[in-house]
Amino acid sequence: MGNPIIVALDAMGGDNAPSEIVKGAVEAVKESDRVIVKLVGAEEAVKAELAKYEYDAERISVVNATEVIETAEPPVHAIRGKKDSSMVVAFNLVKNGEADAFVSAGSTGAILVGGQLIVGRIRGIDRPPLAPVFPTAKGPSLLVDCGANVDARPDHLLKFAQMGSIYMENVMGIKNPRVAIVNVGSEEEKGNALVKETFPLLKECADINFIGSIEAKEIPAGYADVIVCDAFVGNCILKMFEGVGMTLVSEIKREMMSSFRGKLGALLVKPALKKVLKKYDATEYGGAPLIGLKGLVIKSHGSSDAKEIRNSILQCISFVENDITGKIKQSIINQ
Amino acid sequence: MGNPIIVALDAMGGDNAPSEIVKGAVEAVKESDRVIVKLVGAEEAVKAELAKYEYDAERISVVNATEVIETAEPPVHAIRGKKDSSMVVAFNLVKNGEADAFVSAGSTGAILVGGQLIVGRIRGIDRPPLAPVFPTAKGPSLLVDCGANVDARPDHLLKFAQMGSIYMENVMGIKNPRVAIVNVGSEEEKGNALVKETFPLLKECADINFIGSIEAKEIPAGYADVIVCDAFVGNCILKMFEGVGMTLVSEIKREMMSSFRGKLGALLVKPALKKVLKKYDATEYGGAPLIGLKGLVIKSHGSSDAKEIRNSILQCISFVENDITGKIKQSIINQ
Repeated sequence: MGNPIIVALDAMGGDNAPSEIVKGAVEAVKESDRVIVKLVGAEEAVKAELAKYEYDAERISVVNATEVIETAEPPVHAIRGKKDSSMVVAFNLVKNGEADAFVSAGSTGAILVGGQLIVGRIRGIDRPPLAPVFPTAKGPSLLVDCGANVDARPDHLLKFAQMGSIYMENVMGIKNPRVAIVNVGSEEEKGNALVKETFPLLKECADINFIGSIEAKEIPAGYADVIVCDAFVGNCILKMFEGVGMTLVSEIKREMMSSFRGKLGALLVKPALKKVLKKYDATEYGGAPLIGLKGLVIKSHGSSDAKEIRNSILQCISFVENDITGKIKQSIINQ
Repeated sequence: MGNPIIVALDAMGGDNAPSEIVKGAVEAVKESDRVIVKLVGAEEAVKAELAKYEYDAERISVVNATEVIETAEPPVHAIRGKKDSSMVVAFNLVKNGEADAFVSAGSTGAILVGGQLIVGRIRGIDRPPLAPVFPTAKGPSLLVDCGANVDARPDHLLKFAQMGSIYMENVMGIKNPRVAIVNVGSEEEKGNALVKETFPLLKECADINFIGSIEAKEIPAGYADVIVCDAFVGNCILKMFEGVGMTLVSEIKREMMSSFRGKLGALLVKPALKKVLKKYDATEYGGAPLIGLKGLVIKSHGSSDAKEIRNSILQCISFVENDITGKIKQSIINQ
């Protein structure tokens, strides 16, 4: 047991701020005594929410910030202009060593920009990717990149593979994680220009366990632990994952409820359905880390509820304890 | 009622050739008296399959071809080298006006190459896209491109939108089809370089009903009728659609079957589940047309069974009757 992990939590980010964010913080400190949360945001509103709960007052504090960055604001402008926003104040806590990690359910663009401009990139990492962990039939996989670099280059994808491997091995405990690149077929000559150029780089890289191409249809089945692609493709894959699941499940429910027989059956299969839905609920794994920065930055879904915020906070523990940032720095030096 | 539609069917293509292909041909001529099928392949094997069924002998004939193009063969080499393959012979029937349409469950690469080299492109169409119709909560949508052009340019995507609109309006009967471009967010400034350059071209195009960006998670819900993207992204979307559905459904089944209560419930909800699965079964719509060629070319799934082959054949009727090829030519002239 080392020092506690201090998380700077953006109390004003996301659709359910500040109520669910504050609740998530309370749940996190109850769940683990390794965590201290600094709630950053409008002091009065945050304290009013906090007053609803009992918690260890030494482990949750409030840092006032008078401004809020909205989702629609142009990110660079917002980060540069709103010096007293909850996000900028929280980012500065990480930069100044007053917090180990930053968690926010706010604007993805502002998180990407603030992470790079304020927390800063590890030397040698040009493009820190956003890398959500998502559920498959065989356990969690990491999708890098999923939001930061829509026009990535082959050397970016190589670094995504290396950093993703370090993350999955050390944070998720998967030994020698299998790395695959998203492709339109399994043959080496397939792919667009980016994939064709990246493939040999991954093949030659000694410090990853590269297993070749993965077709999108193989992803939900869990054929790889680290799945590498540019952020445009990654976003489409992640959103299809959510979209197909939501549509299928709601159609199945609607169809079952349209007859007496179906309603009766629905009652009986409810536990089985619930179990599957829980297994495929991405929020179980918390938010997506922006990897390759000097400190830990976690982007939680905009729609995050208390449970997802709690999981995002708890996720910081193994990241910081296993010194992922140090390990990424070391892997860059070794090249 | 005009002339019958003559379909050149590759009897040797796909995992289940020739048995399921021949069966599909028989089912198609039974289903519609508008269709004549020319089964192209190893005469003896095809006739042995045909002998299993009763059918109108005037509406199914066999055209002998002694070679077969395998899935793993390099497409250009295969199409140029195997002059007496079922695919090349069938393509030539279309080229020479002895057939109106070509249907195959064989190698996608060879179909794309043969379509362009033998049947030929409509003047003004550089890159004919492969455009599968797939099921959504609100009915069928068309995904262009899904296999042909992994590194497409903005002007290609514009033509995909125009041809896709003609297809959905005339073949699927959707008036003024909504066209959207796949993107990582709904704001106009979002996207990779390709999308940012394509967006204004689509916005300015008078002969389509462009509704803006569509995020992948909105696709299964049916937010657009014609969905435009490069083939790399299209392939990922289509394959995620299949992969997530397969994984979720098999997990739900497995979970239900693991308890007595679940098994009983499964019996009761079976009709509801079946109805949903049928609605989301892409094979109901037949294969994917390769649009922008001088004749109709349809690629059916490699795993096609008789039902999908039958649907792919029947799909040719409205394409030919509505003169999609002529309408695409006209739309190019009008520009």
